[in-house]
Amino acid sequence: MTDQNAVLAQILVALQTLETNQSALAATVEGIQSRIETSSTVNQLKTQQLPRPTDSPSVDPKDLRQDTNGHILSSSPPPRSSIDSQRPSISLGEPVKSLPTQRRSSITSRIILTTYPGQSGIDPVPLTWGEADPQKRGPVVVSRHSKTIRKRNAIGAHGGSYSIYNALAVAAHHLDLEHKPDFTNTEPAVIIGPFPAWSDKRKIVAMDPLGHLAPWLYKDLMQPPNDLDIRPTIAVTKAHMKIPELEDSVRKGRLVPDGKICLNSTGELAVTKFAVEPVWYLPGVAERFGISEADLRRALFEHTGGSYPELITRNDIKVFLPPIGGLTVYCFGDPKAMSDPNVKLALRVHDECNGSDVFGSDICTCRPYLIFGIEEAVKMAQQGGSGVVIYFRKEGRALGEVTKYLVYNARKRGLDRASEYFKRTENIAGVKDMRFQALMPDILHWLGITKIDRMLSMSNMKHDAIVEQGIPIHERVEIPEDMVPEDSRVEIDAKIHAGYFTTGKVMTVEELNAVKGRAWEDIEH
Amino acid sequence: MTDQNAVLAQILVALQTLETNQSALAATVEGIQSRIETSSTVNQLKTQQLPRPTDSPSVDPKDLRQDTNGHILSSSPPPRSSIDSQRPSISLGEPVKSLPTQRRSSITSRIILTTYPGQSGIDPVPLTWGEADPQKRGPVVVSRHSKTIRKRNAIGAHGGSYSIYNALAVAAHHLDLEHKPDFTNTEPAVIIGPFPAWSDKRKIVAMDPLGHLAPWLYKDLMQPPNDLDIRPTIAVTKAHMKIPELEDSVRKGRLVPDGKICLNSTGELAVTKFAVEPVWYLPGVAERFGISEADLRRALFEHTGGSYPELITRNDIKVFLPPIGGLTVYCFGDPKAMSDPNVKLALRVHDECNGSDVFGSDICTCRPYLIFGIEEAVKMAQQGGSGVVIYFRKEGRALGEVTKYLVYNARKRGLDRASEYFKRTENIAGVKDMRFQALMPDILHWLGITKIDRMLSMSNMKHDAIVEQGIPIHERVEIPEDMVPEDSRVEIDAKIHAGYFTTGKVMTVEELNAVKGRAWEDIEH
Repeated sequence: MTDQNAVLAQILVALQTLETNQSALAATVEGIQSRIETSSTVNQLKTQQLPRPTDSPSVDPKDLRQDTNGHILSSSPPPRSSIDSQRPSISLGEPVKSLPTQRRSSITSRIILTTYPGQSGIDPVPLTWGEADPQKRGPVVVSRHSKTIRKRNAIGAHGGSYSIYNALAVAAHHLDLEHKPDFTNTEPAVIIGPFPAWSDKRKIVAMDPLGHLAPWLYKDLMQPPNDLDIRPTIAVTKAHMKIPELEDSVRKGRLVPDGKICLNSTGELAVTKFAVEPVWYLPGVAERFGISEADLRRALFEHTGGSYPELITRNDIKVFLPPIGGLTVYCFGDPKAMSDPNVKLALRVHDECNGSDVFGSDICTCRPYLIFGIEEAVKMAQQGGSGVVIYFRKEGRALGEVTKYLVYNARKRGLDRASEYFKRTENIAGVKDMRFQALMPDILHWLGITKIDRMLSMSNMKHDAIVEQGIPIHERVEIPEDMVPEDSRVEIDAKIHAGYFTTGKVMTVEELNAVKGRAWEDIEH
Repeated sequence: MTDQNAVLAQILVALQTLETNQSALAATVEGIQSRIETSSTVNQLKTQQLPRPTDSPSVDPKDLRQDTNGHILSSSPPPRSSIDSQRPSISLGEPVKSLPTQRRSSITSRIILTTYPGQSGIDPVPLTWGEADPQKRGPVVVSRHSKTIRKRNAIGAHGGSYSIYNALAVAAHHLDLEHKPDFTNTEPAVIIGPFPAWSDKRKIVAMDPLGHLAPWLYKDLMQPPNDLDIRPTIAVTKAHMKIPELEDSVRKGRLVPDGKICLNSTGELAVTKFAVEPVWYLPGVAERFGISEADLRRALFEHTGGSYPELITRNDIKVFLPPIGGLTVYCFGDPKAMSDPNVKLALRVHDECNGSDVFGSDICTCRPYLIFGIEEAVKMAQQGGSGVVIYFRKEGRALGEVTKYLVYNARKRGLDRASEYFKRTENIAGVKDMRFQALMPDILHWLGITKIDRMLSMSNMKHDAIVEQGIPIHERVEIPEDMVPEDSRVEIDAKIHAGYFTTGKVMTVEELNAVKGRAWEDIEH
């Protein structure tokens, strides 16, 4: 009995311990379970959606509670569930088709923070970059229109940085999300290509070679039942232009009106213009920079302040329309001459400098070189060749105007010498230039340009990028001395010292030291 | 004994039940635990980081496996853990301080897809928009520098859309992430303000009123131990500029050189320039558009293609630096005169039109009106008043140049009549204009402008936006008839009909019908 009683007592103790532990464990599991289910259940009830596993970080707009002033107080953490399978399949938030206006649909549907490959409902339109047959290549589909969002095969948005204004138009209820662009009569004003480079996925990586034809090539996909939102990323038009300096050129006899390209004594020009929005094929862009696609995608996400998480999560999508400016081609003479190897081609590749291009700042050679480029391009076209000027939106060496002005101040307040020129920019921006000419030659390939007879640029970076892409440059033409503004000697001499092309003298460091800029208060009467 | 045996039997049954339940429970917990831990454990082992809870959707870069061509094959779903508290505290991925170069740190540290308020480690620098005392207001901190990322109080990145080029510079290993800008000698070239509007959070919502002084106001925060990365969003410099049309103005006697503002017979001008990057205080921007902050944030996220998830998840952050272009102020005469109510002020607010501003397209009045604005501004400054021209980066009514050219084509191929002018844009873009002048007057408030004597603009939208902000306009000045290019009559007559200011005649619909554009092939010899 004593033995038995002792054993019973021991059993009882063990039992009680077990019970206590199990209660604690059950409570913990209960807590875990409820935390996992709560948010998603709440969301499902609110949106009347069937329960389904979800893996997308998503936030219900109703969780963004507002105080009486409309200020958002807090947001609940994203719902988490789908712990019952290793690789859950996920639906996109169902677009509410019965609510046609943007006002209502923007309030009721779920916000998808990012998506993942293989989620149910996600079915990107096939896109094989570099395919020659447009139907096999497939369209670039980036729109988040309700009919298109699941079919997207590109990250980003149309319009480059103007997508922000598009978002404002939606927010302010100026833009009906169901608006369908009417592309009647908007077709390119001239026929161009196709050229072999259009189907070479290593030669064109920063624009869509079919971007000017997209709505016509893929018209069927834009009709029911697909109703895809497909838009051009290139537009081609014709125009007349009048530049005051060219009136002077005609007056001085440098430019002779021919009635076709240079129209009259005012120096008026006829021109074909191509506007191009950036469309990046990420593996190709990475290759051009000699880095891995993963490193490129990560840097594009992180060093823009964490934009476009799909750069990280959607590795199945290879195309990105970044929020930056594009480029414009100004073609003088017959556009067909650009790709004709039997006639000469003059080219100016110009990077935006608003302060000089529009406002005539005397601190750099930008507008003078641009005008010289236009004049030389016109002359080449008049001689039966082709003249091309390409304008890239890369203000202040793609550092922007705020950085540019900071550099100006440091130059003018320090010793503004050619020898210190690049150091000033590096001190502030960490690099002397962010223009990355590596992507620039794409437009030359697209235009069918296979050689350049007269390159109206002294930049070694532009030269090297073009030659590396297999396009020979036969002659490099400096800006004439008499077009260099007095105060821009600091810039041009520093650039020549750093490798810019010249037929003249390359200064020594000592000589560069002696090239000084004009002070703020220097005035020539 | 029987009782004892019965009890023992009961105990045994209970024990067995407990055992069974406990096994099941343990298995469930084990399952939950292993699912939660797997990804993060793998990550921790790979990155040699100490185990810690994390709630951020994050992806280890090593999970982006690549095939031999560098193509990314797949990514694992984001790790999830920290299920042991109701509102879990979360650490940001620990920046690896011992690895100084961007190359190594970009490979080893974890990618954070988005963050949430209240995560442990996240500690935004206080920022009270509209506070007069700069120390109470606090700096705008948007950088993701390792020392700054936890302290960020703004979404987005410096440089507007040029943040993309910054990301490329990092990806290509051109930019050392540890680079510290040296702001020596970059201070504003003139002193401005402070003005009462700088501390009115309803008057300035689209730029940082302290943006030109940030590195000097918050110098202490930029030193150890804080080491915050704080950068200016406004830069102020002085310059000389030469515009060919103004040489003609001097020759014709319209402009008389005074040696101070218009320097000489070439029409050279002295100017003070202000470059401003957009910095949006989201509650204020929303209010300006008459919408809720939640609707604004959601539209900015979704209708840019899903950029900046922190617009959705970080409602504690109220400031956004969008990836768009900013503006530049060109001030003629003494900058102090801008805010002096006792002298007259002439103002041109100009929205970018590259095709006209730089290349002299004859289809619009943009450059002619800009030149007229500059000339009138200079004259007002010469008379002891102030002349101001503000250039906004809003190409093609903020629709971009591709859309603009599509519209040109539709116009030239259809009946290019003034009566159809706006309809062409609406058919394609869904709106006739996306410039949203509502945010434009901020710069006027910032410059201390309290009234405009001569407004060199006919735009009713600009006029209304300025007047609504409490700045009266005493006179509106049309572009002189002889400056209107022949082919731009379609544009200007359509605009006048739609509400643009004129002292002349407003055409009837029938008359507008008769205003036709020049065809592509029309040539004046």
